[in-house]
Amino acid sequence: MADLILVTFDWVPEMPRGYVRDLRVRWALEEAGLPYRVETVPFRTRGAEHFVNQPFGQVPWLIDGGFSIFESGAILLHLGERSSALMSSDSRRRSAVIEWLFAALNSVEAASLPWTIFRFSGDIAETPGRTHVEAFLESRLQRMEAVLAGREWLAGSFSVADILMADVLRLVDRFDGLAEFPACRSYVRRATARPSFVKAHADQLAHFAAAD
Amino acid sequence: MADLILVTFDWVPEMPRGYVRDLRVRWALEEAGLPYRVETVPFRTRGAEHFVNQPFGQVPWLIDGGFSIFESGAILLHLGERSSALMSSDSRRRSAVIEWLFAALNSVEAASLPWTIFRFSGDIAETPGRTHVEAFLESRLQRMEAVLAGREWLAGSFSVADILMADVLRLVDRFDGLAEFPACRSYVRRATARPSFVKAHADQLAHFAAAD
Repeated sequence: MADLILVTFDWVPEMPRGYVRDLRVRWALEEAGLPYRVETVPFRTRGAEHFVNQPFGQVPWLIDGGFSIFESGAILLHLGERSSALMSSDSRRRSAVIEWLFAALNSVEAASLPWTIFRFSGDIAETPGRTHVEAFLESRLQRMEAVLAGREWLAGSFSVADILMADVLRLVDRFDGLAEFPACRSYVRRATARPSFVKAHADQLAHFAAAD
Repeated sequence: MADLILVTFDWVPEMPRGYVRDLRVRWALEEAGLPYRVETVPFRTRGAEHFVNQPFGQVPWLIDGGFSIFESGAILLHLGERSSALMSSDSRRRSAVIEWLFAALNSVEAASLPWTIFRFSGDIAETPGRTHVEAFLESRLQRMEAVLAGREWLAGSFSVADILMADVLRLVDRFDGLAEFPACRSYVRRATARPSFVKAHADQLAHFAAAD
């Protein structure tokens, strides 16, 4: 069986290091114990072939045999189909993993991403749009707080849904957005204490540092 | 075989009508010719059971036999597994449908949602955060324009990925955000001209109008 190939940038600036989305894939691959190697594409000059593999000019994508798959959610779902360490094959548990995987992206990250855009841009103007953005994230975190107060992992046991949700909440925590949500913060700490996260995170930092 | 049950609100205000996310599920069910019935939960008072089925207090969810599934992406993927009219069973085509399904939600809607928040809130202040939000959507639409200039549907033939992408772009078009992206606009028109969309859209409007 051919090794899996994870494609990421050759280099990125300091700010996103430790948060580039190849981390989600590295983490999943480590949890599953699937062998893989890393290949790179230029960050500064994105060629036509890059867009063939990732139509938005982003990373990561994963090559699995003849397949090239983009979107971290699609990649994690694909890896979940390959490893029961990432997604149960029981139909009910599998369904729960998939709904929470989408929830991490489309209910929580959809709210956290605009919030982090304001944080990254240093924007502190109190405008109506910004007020809505803040309220949107707060409403989602309140719900996640209720969910996470009652369970260790989202879908019965650790799964790809937790990789996505923890990675999404981790970026909120970076800007201290979880101060009033202790169950969310504990969940992030629990997830990021896993040896597979620790290794994936260190590997990403080392990868970009080696290119400096 | 038990009918599928689509759960949505009993009523919503005028503004979101025609855009409530049960539309995505209605559309898919019509495309697949799967029989279903609609049940409702109160919009104004969301009880504990609502949150059991949809942890964010939103709609829709789908009941399929013993399963209750939330998140429109997860529901459409589930329906895609049930009908080849929604997702090819060929492994390569299926993989393309799934990556574009995630792309619609996490690469395009992630950028369009904050943009529509500003539109809905009538916010026109030129702040750094807002500038980033505008540029984020523009960068994603430029890429979608290049993709859609070269193909009729995202993954070879019409699929659940097109239902999500067209529904996401349709809301951008509502605020005239596709004026400079003719291929995106043509795609939305092509998708929303399908009889299944027309019926689903009319059904949603009639459903909420009946509750006034």
